Amino acid sequence: MKKRQLGPCVTFFPQPATLICTSDRQDKINLMMASWVGIVSKTPPTIAVSLHHDRQTYANIMAGKVFSVNLVPARLAVAADACGLVSGSVADKHQLTGLEVVPGTVEGVFLVADSPLNVECRWLREVELGDYRLVMGEIVEIHACESAFDDNGQADVRTFDPLVYLGGLREYWSLGSKTADAYSAGSVLLKKQA
Amino acid sequence: MKKRQLGPCVTFFPQPATLICTSDRQDKINLMMASWVGIVSKTPPTIAVSLHHDRQTYANIMAGKVFSVNLVPARLAVAADACGLVSGSVADKHQLTGLEVVPGTVEGVFLVADSPLNVECRWLREVELGDYRLVMGEIVEIHACESAFDDNGQADVRTFDPLVYLGGLREYWSLGSKTADAYSAGSVLLKKQA
Repeated sequence: MKKRQLGPCVTFFPQPATLICTSDRQDKINLMMASWVGIVSKTPPTIAVSLHHDRQTYANIMAGKVFSVNLVPARLAVAADACGLVSGSVADKHQLTGLEVVPGTVEGVFLVADSPLNVECRWLREVELGDYRLVMGEIVEIHACESAFDDNGQADVRTFDPLVYLGGLREYWSLGSKTADAYSAGSVLLKKQA
Repeated sequence: MKKRQLGPCVTFFPQPATLICTSDRQDKINLMMASWVGIVSKTPPTIAVSLHHDRQTYANIMAGKVFSVNLVPARLAVAADACGLVSGSVADKHQLTGLEVVPGTVEGVFLVADSPLNVECRWLREVELGDYRLVMGEIVEIHACESAFDDNGQADVRTFDPLVYLGGLREYWSLGSKTADAYSAGSVLLKKQA
């Protein structure tokens, strides 16, 4: 396969499109679009979010030490993108997008009501990386859309309909079809070798 | 929307399916399936990978201070999944999967030849998170499949065909269709409000 060298830059890896919900000391809510988001530990369950240090969201997290990460379903792509186009210090994201928020279980945490998956986090630690801050939050509670689950408690990702962000391309995509089961599909190769 | 509380656990957010390629001091190559991977800074371009401290890959990164992150295209789901089922300390992943590796531009870095997107990284720092280590690597070079680019240098993600991992569900999915352009689609709401 012929390849092109791009130099050091950000990649085209698929990342989750999420809305980070925070509030300031006056309980003014802010919503930030974030895709530099991912699980980083199970002991304890920890999520990491990287964001520019001059963002209102970062100031809010530093002040309150709590935040929520809300999955963006594909149908909310436009509203979520609008949250990435304007700062919470100059615009009311609720007025702009019509997105409602509701209180979480932890004091000071608010959740995007229309998101099918909300993750409540408590600030754990952070790392300075140039202009960015990698904020790690311990996952305190997860709220998932009830209708996604069958009688066995198995969830169907199509109900969540997660929006995928491709950073290097600046594009949002939906999921297509299930390719394979993880920790399972590869066992055919192990059996062949045995 | 009625919701179910799941307690603190890992989420269903879409994450990139990648293969982390490393080598030990005897140049024995190892491939590890990883989805706790994401960009964390642009200054400089930095990628973070979280992995269990007892993995051979972690030992290799600590020894050589370099690694590569290779996008898994959907067609390689089975081979990549096999790399997640067995340790590099007991199995030869090349023999197991047939995946070829080639040297990168940095001494000691190897790239998965069949992957359409390879990211060469130099160890920058790490954070201890329970049993996991969040390794941050400075992106030194990116190699992207030449045929993905048009005459204007715009890449088509369908050529990369990235495999998406849904952690909480343990499922791999392909991408579906483009939903919207990022940093653009939301501007209709800003215009409405203006």
